[in-house]
Amino acid sequence: MGSFKGHALPGSFFLIAGLWWAGKYSLWYATLRNKSLGSTRLASRSTQRRLEVIEGSVTLFFSVVGMLAEQFVSDGPRLHLYDYSEHHWDRLHNWQHSTMYLFFCLAGAMSLIVHTTDAAPLALDRLMLAIAFFIEGFLFLYHLHGRAMLDVHVHQLLLFCVFGEAMVSFLEVFHRGNILLELLRASLTILQGSWFWQIGFVLYSPSGAEWDQKDHNNMMFITMCYCWHLVFSILIVSVLYCTISCVVRSRLKRTPPMEMGLLKPRERQQESEDETL
Amino acid sequence: MGSFKGHALPGSFFLIAGLWWAGKYSLWYATLRNKSLGSTRLASRSTQRRLEVIEGSVTLFFSVVGMLAEQFVSDGPRLHLYDYSEHHWDRLHNWQHSTMYLFFCLAGAMSLIVHTTDAAPLALDRLMLAIAFFIEGFLFLYHLHGRAMLDVHVHQLLLFCVFGEAMVSFLEVFHRGNILLELLRASLTILQGSWFWQIGFVLYSPSGAEWDQKDHNNMMFITMCYCWHLVFSILIVSVLYCTISCVVRSRLKRTPPMEMGLLKPRERQQESEDETL
Amino acid sequence: MGSFKGHALPGSFFLIAGLWWAGKYSLWYATLRNKSLGSTRLASRSTQRRLEVIEGSVTLFFSVVGMLAEQFVSDGPRLHLYDYSEHHWDRLHNWQHSTMYLFFCLAGAMSLIVHTTDAAPLALDRLMLAIAFFIEGFLFLYHLHGRAMLDVHVHQLLLFCVFGEAMVSFLEVFHRGNILLELLRASLTILQGSWFWQIGFVLYSPSGAEWDQKDHNNMMFITMCYCWHLVFSILIVSVLYCTISCVVRSRLKRTPPMEMGLLKPRERQQESEDETL
Amino acid sequence: MGSFKGHALPGSFFLIAGLWWAGKYSLWYATLRNKSLGSTRLASRSTQRRLEVIEGSVTLFFSVVGMLAEQFVSDGPRLHLYDYSEHHWDRLHNWQHSTMYLFFCLAGAMSLIVHTTDAAPLALDRLMLAIAFFIEGFLFLYHLHGRAMLDVHVHQLLLFCVFGEAMVSFLEVFHRGNILLELLRASLTILQGSWFWQIGFVLYSPSGAEWDQKDHNNMMFITMCYCWHLVFSILIVSVLYCTISCVVRSRLKRTPPMEMGLLKPRERQQESEDETL
Repeated sequence: MGSFKGHALPGSFFLIAGLWWAGKYSLWYATLRNKSLGSTRLASRSTQRRLEVIEGSVTLFFSVVGMLAEQFVSDGPRLHLYDYSEHHWDRLHNWQHSTMYLFFCLAGAMSLIVHTTDAAPLALDRLMLAIAFFIEGFLFLYHLHGRAMLDVHVHQLLLFCVFGEAMVSFLEVFHRGNILLELLRASLTILQGSWFWQIGFVLYSPSGAEWDQKDHNNMMFITMCYCWHLVFSILIVSVLYCTISCVVRSRLKRTPPMEMGLLKPRERQQESEDETL
Repeated sequence: MGSFKGHALPGSFFLIAGLWWAGKYSLWYATLRNKSLGSTRLASRSTQRRLEVIEGSVTLFFSVVGMLAEQFVSDGPRLHLYDYSEHHWDRLHNWQHSTMYLFFCLAGAMSLIVHTTDAAPLALDRLMLAIAFFIEGFLFLYHLHGRAMLDVHVHQLLLFCVFGEAMVSFLEVFHRGNILLELLRASLTILQGSWFWQIGFVLYSPSGAEWDQKDHNNMMFITMCYCWHLVFSILIVSVLYCTISCVVRSRLKRTPPMEMGLLKPRERQQESEDETL
Repeated sequence: MGSFKGHALPGSFFLIAGLWWAGKYSLWYATLRNKSLGSTRLASRSTQRRLEVIEGSVTLFFSVVGMLAEQFVSDGPRLHLYDYSEHHWDRLHNWQHSTMYLFFCLAGAMSLIVHTTDAAPLALDRLMLAIAFFIEGFLFLYHLHGRAMLDVHVHQLLLFCVFGEAMVSFLEVFHRGNILLELLRASLTILQGSWFWQIGFVLYSPSGAEWDQKDHNNMMFITMCYCWHLVFSILIVSVLYCTISCVVRSRLKRTPPMEMGLLKPRERQQESEDETL
Repeated sequence: MGSFKGHALPGSFFLIAGLWWAGKYSLWYATLRNKSLGSTRLASRSTQRRLEVIEGSVTLFFSVVGMLAEQFVSDGPRLHLYDYSEHHWDRLHNWQHSTMYLFFCLAGAMSLIVHTTDAAPLALDRLMLAIAFFIEGFLFLYHLHGRAMLDVHVHQLLLFCVFGEAMVSFLEVFHRGNILLELLRASLTILQGSWFWQIGFVLYSPSGAEWDQKDHNNMMFITMCYCWHLVFSILIVSVLYCTISCVVRSRLKRTPPMEMGLLKPRERQQESEDETL
């Protein structure tokens, strides 16, 4: 029903996503604050859009890969949903994971559409992200029937950060560009990623050591451990934020801003349009 | 206590309502964005008001029909609430369904009043809709006592979208005209409609096949199936939105806007009033 | 532990409070909308403040009376909290009811302070009202241990409107003067009042008829009945709102506005200050 | 597993924090309202910043002291987490308390950074405070397994104010400077402090009297007692607020504002910058 790899893989993806978001939003916030120093050279609106497009494409690509992997791994269902010979559903866990990937795939696709065309309102990418996280939590919620106490508990703890991310993304629909919400989302994503790794070590320890799944002390330790992961993710995001702020500032101070007159008229217009977006 | 028809009928209503909303709000958003091309020819404010009045009337009409149908079908209570001969309540399920229709009837009536007169604040229609959805969920919540596990589960899943619609409608009281909330409401309504059909097929399958109501795998499949319905409804809304956006744009480009001078003064004033509403 | 009177009395208070609020806010909204017709003659800001002071005083008075009544009725605790002879707490139900009244007493006092002096921010009255309703619900929540199923159920239903009122009042801290929230609060208060009467009739029927407290059909009927009370309260608020709107308009049309020149300079200044408040 | 001192100590800290906040925010609100009388003499923006820095330092200091105390008291774990000889976790309660202090330590550090540098957005201090309170509640939530009924109940009541504080702090991220939210947070903090003392007296009474942990009447009394603590904390905050308002006004009236001309130009500019912050 599960394996160390099956938890480490999505964990790594979420870790990378969290780090990426922390870096991206820190960079944008730093350029926004240092506009007077000509920071738009470092990350102009068109660079930002390009980054968003890359992010959307990568999300889309890995979600599709994830869906296919869940279906066509050695013990996957290979798109068979119902085993007619034995009258039962076929490998529902793989199907559930595929469904989770499907929603992230949808979120990636919507983000691509929003940032390449102007057909849809900008906040759509956050709304789809909120729905994707909500569905991930929703499926985990009904995923846990009949498992051991510790197994249920570590997955329940996961729900806190998953639903937290859903809520923060939904708030961003109304408060887009709020750096605190963006960094909070990044922290929670790193927390989710590192917690997936922790689940892998607790339930399917590669060293072979087994945890007593019914010991209440283990549960208390795990709960506390979850908080330490949160501290760890907050610290990582803080360090990233500070580093990027400093780098942006020092680079801007060393190289004086180009003369505005050197820009071609079309570019200058572009820039000022950017600021009103 | 239930039947295939009894679930297919409201399901169809919600499906139609969801499609209608997706279309209506997409059209309005498209006209709003293409104002410079003279889009108000396609859907001026007075057309919009007329559509709202039609929507309110249709809601009111079908809710009243629903209430009467629940009372006067062959095995309905015919307005008898208490069976004095046998000292028990008479066909409470029909009465509960009537109550649900009653609130949608109220919402339709309020919407009519809001859009035909200017006696009440505009947001009242959303507030009543929120209350109607909340009461629908509230009654379902206390509807499920003593039923089989799968039966309870499929109705609990329904609650997610019903309460979701209530929450989105309530948010619209404060964020009226937010296209994302409107499309989200449309998606959830389509989800509710198609899920009613699914419930009909699972619990009262017309083909006669029966589901094992105590099999945990069935529950896991059903949960996943619910997510697929959501994907399906999001896709339908997206397709509708894109189609309508394209059609509006292409029609506007083919026919150049009428000369403003051709409009009678009173009309022109009307138009500019519309924009400030 | 309870009696018909003990539910009818607070029920009547909440009914009157709900009707009063529905009337008050309808009147203010009507005067606000008809300002061009000189509606400030009917309810100027100073009249409004006087009404608020009266409301605060009445709330304060009846809360104190309620607290004293709970203590000094024939079987009340008369301020004794602990029975030292028999080592148990003395009449905790009366003490709990006194505590509920205490918070409404606090809300009344705060409202008085807010509207007579300008020491505290205006929204404080709503915050205290929210706290008072929250505590009422909070105490009911832990009030129900060891009672019969129907008894628990009717009190749980009460919690929906009590916590609803708390939430609406809290929202009003941020959206003060939103007529929809104010009328919603009035409706929920009327619902609470009429539901107290209903509880009295169900649990301590004056006609002596007893309800079977374990019959599931009774619970289903009661749930539905609650929704009917809500319809009833919404209709009452609507009728009040419409009547007051019409009366205000017809009175304003019959009597032309006084000449502004007839007002003394100080008064006129007062009026324009009002509008900026 | 617990002691009177172990509850009285954090209780005292929260009491002091609550009183400090009530005083601080009352003072700032009073200076803000009396600007025309030259109130910035009493608490200019630079004084405010200095107070914030002191508050952050004190929080940081006592959190670190708390963490160390939990580790190195006579029966503390002294940084040993796992007892390898007996294969069980070592004194998890102390570790959990250390974790709680860790988050307040983080909140203090972030507050220091926010108010000494301008590297981070201002609202970060409230966000970290919200997270610190949330984690405190979160750890208490999973702290209670296998305890007696009354023990569980008094700690559950604590959760109401802890999560309440988390919610209010999170709201302040978006509504910074709302005096009502700030005073509500102060009240809830005083409530938490006094409730810690109450828990100490109930569970580890220094007089040696023991409460029957299974008596339902005790639970009902404790619930009511919690409400009285809330009344008490609201009254304290009100008295503090009124006293400070009066003192500020009377001092401003006695001493006429200094001539603006006497301020050095740089200072004057500082002041006007303050107002735009």
